[in-house]
Amino acid sequence: MAGLIGLDWGTSSLRAYHFDGLGRIAETRARPWGIRQLPDGGYDAALADITAGWPALPRLACGMVGSRGGWREVPYLDLPADIARLGDALACLRAADGMDVHLVPGLRDPQGPDVMRGEETQLAGALALQPTLAGASSWILPGTHSKWAAVRDGVVTGFRTLMTGELYAVLQRHSILGGNTPAEEDAAAFARGVAAARDSGAAGALSRLFSTRALMLDGVLAPASAPDYLSGLLIGEEFRAALADGLARRDTPLQLIGDAALCERYRRAAALFDIDLPPPVQDAAAHGLWRLAVQGGVVAAIEETRAC
Amino acid sequence: MAGLIGLDWGTSSLRAYHFDGLGRIAETRARPWGIRQLPDGGYDAALADITAGWPALPRLACGMVGSRGGWREVPYLDLPADIARLGDALACLRAADGMDVHLVPGLRDPQGPDVMRGEETQLAGALALQPTLAGASSWILPGTHSKWAAVRDGVVTGFRTLMTGELYAVLQRHSILGGNTPAEEDAAAFARGVAAARDSGAAGALSRLFSTRALMLDGVLAPASAPDYLSGLLIGEEFRAALADGLARRDTPLQLIGDAALCERYRRAAALFDIDLPPPVQDAAAHGLWRLAVQGGVVAAIEETRAC
Repeated sequence: MAGLIGLDWGTSSLRAYHFDGLGRIAETRARPWGIRQLPDGGYDAALADITAGWPALPRLACGMVGSRGGWREVPYLDLPADIARLGDALACLRAADGMDVHLVPGLRDPQGPDVMRGEETQLAGALALQPTLAGASSWILPGTHSKWAAVRDGVVTGFRTLMTGELYAVLQRHSILGGNTPAEEDAAAFARGVAAARDSGAAGALSRLFSTRALMLDGVLAPASAPDYLSGLLIGEEFRAALADGLARRDTPLQLIGDAALCERYRRAAALFDIDLPPPVQDAAAHGLWRLAVQGGVVAAIEETRAC
Repeated sequence: MAGLIGLDWGTSSLRAYHFDGLGRIAETRARPWGIRQLPDGGYDAALADITAGWPALPRLACGMVGSRGGWREVPYLDLPADIARLGDALACLRAADGMDVHLVPGLRDPQGPDVMRGEETQLAGALALQPTLAGASSWILPGTHSKWAAVRDGVVTGFRTLMTGELYAVLQRHSILGGNTPAEEDAAAFARGVAAARDSGAAGALSRLFSTRALMLDGVLAPASAPDYLSGLLIGEEFRAALADGLARRDTPLQLIGDAALCERYRRAAALFDIDLPPPVQDAAAHGLWRLAVQGGVVAAIEETRAC
């Protein structure tokens, strides 16, 4: 029996993939068991439950499960980090069922400094799907903590975290910019926010945050549209900052990884920067887990394929 | 009986000054009665209480009392705004005691857009105290919503709000950057945050916010010192952004207005930008209220002086 169980284990969710011996996904399962909200019995119980009924296969996990406060802390690899060597740096723990769980290390950019856990696996998967981009590309992984990463010759040369999703949420809920009015979708307000960030120049969008309130006082921004304006301002700032510090370049392909609906907002923002962003890469984590398992010898995919 | 009652009436506090006919402060009183937390009886009751026992004098108020949701909305004056003409634009309401309360308008910068209420009066007072700065100067009014303003030939030519105090508070209380550890003062961590903002270049400090967490993971920033690092990052970003968009210039005097302890943090940050900031102007609001009352004919100070 060949194959792999891949685990994408983050702060707030757990996703498990059962791969066959050719790296095809036979089944995917998801649970709300991030490392901050584990079921009774902790990691072992979560693992037993989500893999119930699956064959006993090698297991590889990525994400916050390898962080301090996770199942076992795996040290970060410092940049520059060769994606093709990531599989050499896997860590390992012995689970209560007596079998191993291999763990992908996160990456650390000494500039910043900055860290990621899980996104390195998505990058590995995305580059496996689009190998022509390994030469020179930039990547956006939108989310609570969006990551922008630059890749040159298969090596992650730099990345930066933008706390866009979290900032949006705390400003909406806890600041003067949040309203009592339910939010309504307003594409024009979103575009206006993106443009405000783009046009803020080197001063940056933090110096335009208060415009959310001033525009409401002006009567040109309805309170229900303020959330979309703020969202545009914060997402637009990601593009402005990435272009300013070279993490994204107009002469280099830029590619999204992630949730389709959220990525669509980034595509709309990109258009206001005259950047044509293709649709996002899907299932990057799963592809990355398989690729790194092969690289790291957790599974021996090629031999198995040959045996067929 | 000559003189003035000046009211600095903000969102969370009310301060009243009893000026004699020469513009000297005879008495100052303060109450926690900002426009969001008025006593029973509202504005009239607050005014009657805080001026109890004072002579019936002309009254001039600045701040959020003139905002939408205040006692009476006074339209903003758009920039460029000549400080010497601000007194011409006072509004007026009739209080329950049958006497007038004059109101100072706020300012609006169509660039941004951005707005201020109350700070224009502090600027008027500071320029009355330091008239040589009217030719060319930049001003910092630190606070929950810090304001940076540029003055040329007595005219406010531009300003910007940085939500530093509010951002600091919501990030500390509600984001992943906040700790469970009580904050400890750490001047080195503050300086490190300022330097991180300064060195973020055109990308800006929003792209360095997550470094607060990465430095804690690195073990070089103690959780108790993270608040001072974050404070330095946000205050440093004010300087970086203001220098980037020309609101502050290295060839133009820069001056603080406000609370001594908070201003001291700005002076320490300025030093890391090789800017020598003098101690802050004190009692700017009181001086501004008197100056604008004279300008607007609410009191006739010079005639009174002559009568003596």
